[in-house]
Amino acid sequence: MTKLSKSAYKGTRDYYPEDLALRNYIFSKWREVCNSFGYEEYDASVLESLELYVSKTSEEIVSKQTFSFEDRGGRKVTLRPEMTPTVSRMVAARRQEFGYPLRLFSIPNCFRYERMQRGRTREFWQLNVDLFGIEGIEGELEIAQVIDRTLKVFGATSDMYEIRVNSRLSLQKNIEAARPISDVNSVLRVVDAIDKMSPEDFAQKLSEVLEEPQILVSALQNTELSGEVRDLVEKASSLGIKLKYSPELARGFDYYTDIVFEVFDVNPENNRSMFGGGRYDGLVGTFGAEPVPTIGFGMGDAPLYNFLEVNRLVPQLNLKTDLMLIPITEEDLSRVNEVANKLRTEGKNVAIDYDINRKFDKRLKAAQKLNIPQIAILENGELKVKEVSA
Amino acid sequence: MTKLSKSAYKGTRDYYPEDLALRNYIFSKWREVCNSFGYEEYDASVLESLELYVSKTSEEIVSKQTFSFEDRGGRKVTLRPEMTPTVSRMVAARRQEFGYPLRLFSIPNCFRYERMQRGRTREFWQLNVDLFGIEGIEGELEIAQVIDRTLKVFGATSDMYEIRVNSRLSLQKNIEAARPISDVNSVLRVVDAIDKMSPEDFAQKLSEVLEEPQILVSALQNTELSGEVRDLVEKASSLGIKLKYSPELARGFDYYTDIVFEVFDVNPENNRSMFGGGRYDGLVGTFGAEPVPTIGFGMGDAPLYNFLEVNRLVPQLNLKTDLMLIPITEEDLSRVNEVANKLRTEGKNVAIDYDINRKFDKRLKAAQKLNIPQIAILENGELKVKEVSA
Repeated sequence: MTKLSKSAYKGTRDYYPEDLALRNYIFSKWREVCNSFGYEEYDASVLESLELYVSKTSEEIVSKQTFSFEDRGGRKVTLRPEMTPTVSRMVAARRQEFGYPLRLFSIPNCFRYERMQRGRTREFWQLNVDLFGIEGIEGELEIAQVIDRTLKVFGATSDMYEIRVNSRLSLQKNIEAARPISDVNSVLRVVDAIDKMSPEDFAQKLSEVLEEPQILVSALQNTELSGEVRDLVEKASSLGIKLKYSPELARGFDYYTDIVFEVFDVNPENNRSMFGGGRYDGLVGTFGAEPVPTIGFGMGDAPLYNFLEVNRLVPQLNLKTDLMLIPITEEDLSRVNEVANKLRTEGKNVAIDYDINRKFDKRLKAAQKLNIPQIAILENGELKVKEVSA
Repeated sequence: MTKLSKSAYKGTRDYYPEDLALRNYIFSKWREVCNSFGYEEYDASVLESLELYVSKTSEEIVSKQTFSFEDRGGRKVTLRPEMTPTVSRMVAARRQEFGYPLRLFSIPNCFRYERMQRGRTREFWQLNVDLFGIEGIEGELEIAQVIDRTLKVFGATSDMYEIRVNSRLSLQKNIEAARPISDVNSVLRVVDAIDKMSPEDFAQKLSEVLEEPQILVSALQNTELSGEVRDLVEKASSLGIKLKYSPELARGFDYYTDIVFEVFDVNPENNRSMFGGGRYDGLVGTFGAEPVPTIGFGMGDAPLYNFLEVNRLVPQLNLKTDLMLIPITEEDLSRVNEVANKLRTEGKNVAIDYDINRKFDKRLKAAQKLNIPQIAILENGELKVKEVSA
């Protein structure tokens, strides 16, 4: 028999207790922020019909990055690559029962079959925050506040990140003015990749998709605020939140309809886009329900973890067990469960080492290896508590 | 374009906030009990190599009930049908680094393509509790206590359920004494189904797989306690836990090596097996690591939910939002975020209704539909809090 592999499946990872403690810390902070703004948590299965993503999620993801298969009943299913189609489906199903504004969040795991690199595994966890039923800029303003809090709650300060904002609608108008050779989306894709190219390459790429690229280039250089974006930036500023107008910001997903956000880590060690979101008014309507204005964002765990790490914001976390109870004699062993239960009633989390035949230093060593901070020795009916030094 | 379905994928379910509140309640009670006994939480990906389950999980499950497929790199993967092979793999990978006794628990979702019936969906969540490194009956005694607490913590009393226990090793010896026609496992499968047959059918089935079925029938009728099981039942009893010796109890999985548990709901409305577990000393060793004695159990969410329901133990749960803040004038709207943030600093979870043009009773109705218990009206700079009656 060949030896079975001890590794997790490629692109996924195991969460040992210390890893899960960090994940739980991140999730609990996310929950705290979302709840404080009146968002309620929902969840759904990681398995969804493949058809849910077609014509919503980018073509690139659906055709090349999904984990899709046929189930034993011949249904085409996939492990969700993102949560937005799911929450749109769920809201559509209860469109009339819900009150508005409706605030929902979730922390699902998502799967994408991508080339692996720093901060990207094939399974990731993502905070999804969505606000339904607000047409005006108050929606964007609230989402900007939630984004800002989800970073500050971890101890981040405003100088560590940049929240960029743009009106995709204005960008589209600017593109149209520059007369696209085929369609607006192909130009959007070039604009979306602006950070990955030299100014020369960018100009070259634009000239391949636009008849008058110079019109767009000038528009992208004009950072003067106007209209809705100006209103948003000013109101955010009065609440202490700095938004940076970025006229080239597009965001990949086809379903965004106007304002888009993107958050950048400005630390030189990790200078990259962390997450983003925007307004996507059309999605609930695709399920045959009455459309509802919607704005939201999604924030992956891995980019955040990198952000916390380069900014020295990862805290020391303890595991849950308070002490290891170590009986010494046969008589102590026979009473150890009662003693432990008494300590548990007092609110302590108590593990027991039953092996009275093992040498004491081996028993102490085991508690150390398990990162249990205290031992309680039960000897001739008496309890002595000692700190375990690492 | 055909209308997209608003339903979850077949065999899975959506968790709207009120559904998730119940699930979170159950999970948080499970965590509380496990932590109090010194168990630490771990997690792993729902995707695992298919080979992990072959020759461990029952043949029936692997060949007929897995959600398996080939990924884009040609690897055979499956959505985990159970967690035990995963935790065995993870412990094997760190066999030497861990201290013992090692206590681990997890609450994974698992998938099995089964015919759907009450209490069974194709995706389910399961508490998995495992204790590594204890050879003696103290391990079984601890697991019996954890099982008992995971029911009592929900308000259950001992008369609502029955914890059955057996030595699978003794059962195997009894089967061997009755001389199996082919192999012991085929007899175990008949014994495992004893509750689903009449005594006549059972005798008939046994006579098809045993040369001397009467020897086994007598053994199964002898409920006198002896050996290890007697020791366990007596010690549990002195801790206030009633274990019922059930000489026919086998449990399906092939990997159990000795003591097995099964917990029954005794309510006439729901008289059925809820969950179980047992000793499975061999599994960590199959990964090429030094074997470690292990005992554990798994408890699904759906059987527990049915149990709580028939025993009237499902609590009234609130959502997280404390109040809906309703500004009345333009001036109130312009100040509403500051007011909300102040309330949030005081620990309140505050949603905002920005739509000052909507009629007041519509705004009140929305808060009702969202199950928010209070509204706070902001009118000419003054705040008035009112209860929302359902």
